[in-house]
Amino acid sequence: MSTELLDRAPTLDRRHGLPVHTQIEQWLMDEITHGQIATGDRLPGERALAAALRVSRMTLRQALDGLARRGVLIRLPGRTGGAFVAEPKIDCDLTGLAGFTEQMRRAHRRAGAEVLSACTTAADQEVAAALRIPVGAAVHELVRVRSADGTPLALERSWLPAEHLADLLDHPLTGSIYDLLADHFGLAPHTAVEYLESVSADAADAAALGVPRGTALMSVERVAQSVAGLPVEFARDVYRADRVRLMVRTDVRNRQD
Amino acid sequence: MSTELLDRAPTLDRRHGLPVHTQIEQWLMDEITHGQIATGDRLPGERALAAALRVSRMTLRQALDGLARRGVLIRLPGRTGGAFVAEPKIDCDLTGLAGFTEQMRRAHRRAGAEVLSACTTAADQEVAAALRIPVGAAVHELVRVRSADGTPLALERSWLPAEHLADLLDHPLTGSIYDLLADHFGLAPHTAVEYLESVSADAADAAALGVPRGTALMSVERVAQSVAGLPVEFARDVYRADRVRLMVRTDVRNRQD
Repeated sequence: MSTELLDRAPTLDRRHGLPVHTQIEQWLMDEITHGQIATGDRLPGERALAAALRVSRMTLRQALDGLARRGVLIRLPGRTGGAFVAEPKIDCDLTGLAGFTEQMRRAHRRAGAEVLSACTTAADQEVAAALRIPVGAAVHELVRVRSADGTPLALERSWLPAEHLADLLDHPLTGSIYDLLADHFGLAPHTAVEYLESVSADAADAAALGVPRGTALMSVERVAQSVAGLPVEFARDVYRADRVRLMVRTDVRNRQD
Repeated sequence: MSTELLDRAPTLDRRHGLPVHTQIEQWLMDEITHGQIATGDRLPGERALAAALRVSRMTLRQALDGLARRGVLIRLPGRTGGAFVAEPKIDCDLTGLAGFTEQMRRAHRRAGAEVLSACTTAADQEVAAALRIPVGAAVHELVRVRSADGTPLALERSWLPAEHLADLLDHPLTGSIYDLLADHFGLAPHTAVEYLESVSADAADAAALGVPRGTALMSVERVAQSVAGLPVEFARDVYRADRVRLMVRTDVRNRQD
């Protein structure tokens, strides 16, 4: 494949508005998107590729840098190294919060949910504040790993107020908890506030996700409320930053300035 | 401060539901939140702190690991090293997209916006697809750096359809572009779809944000539409992952499964 790619090198348009390295990026993205080069394939060497494109190695590197930065290419050093096509990231929609299984189906991946623990416990200060209940009040604590094709993508930790959701844990917990809230308790989540930040995997994250400690994760902290404004879930989820892209749909509200 | 902290070490509750390391984390968070220990302060050594808390060094390290993972503490190696209180992250609300200046005001920080470039150019394939206009159609391209107290936090790149926003670039561009769209063109952004992922800083990001190449960034790619469904902005923003936490408010829609 790797030398065929050289044969398909396009003639770059140097008078067009687009910088040459951007045109190279777009060409390689097209090759990857259309399956001409596949996950795990190694690109031809920089010298050969630059020659086929009639650009300097510096220009080529700018294009490869751009793709590596977006996680499309992975570069490995050494004799057997080079630039390899990375697995595409998987989109996880934070808006349709419950739709993980459906999202994976659309991405032609097998969704999995493993319940690591499910118990009823006393709310600590943070959980109590988030759910607006007294410290020590009963909450259901649910820890699950979400996976695609057997690869863990996310570790989800949720706390839900037991007062309103008494027998929640008696239901099957590998599917959509939001569907359970809606169908069995009439408490469908309606709005959510989410905080997103970069964190690195601690020992528990690393064990659950099967990654080394320190791996880059995206953390999502969320409080979801029912239509009446009752907090029904406090969640702390972490996603593998190298495998997942998060998606949000928002109404651009009038600013509350 | 550092030895006074030892005097304030709490008696930990070993029968309470909460793990001891979590109680230590909460105590240190309280100390930081209430300004008892400040940004840049070094914590006492692990041995002294563990002794004051009457816990093993392993338990203490679990607590420090937790805080380091969330970016609350920074650990530096060597003789002059130790665990230092990091600057708190700054919340940026992606929902009230235009409100950066107001958000900084609330966080008691001075907001800045520097226009790196503003020009009208031809839409490339990607911009054209996002804005649903022909390739080559005129777009305003705007590149700005957003900062708080003089520290660059975000590099924003936006493309806006020139057909509907002819003299946009003649207006002052250091404030809210969304206000301009609303007030001068009657095209207030109404809904947006955003993709969030972890990326690392390329040369351009690094130069604009004053960070080393490879620094962890959070990338936000957004298409915003007017109430009539007209795409009015395609944006590619990157935020410093070590300085910013992103916030999103969402309506939990009915899933579109």
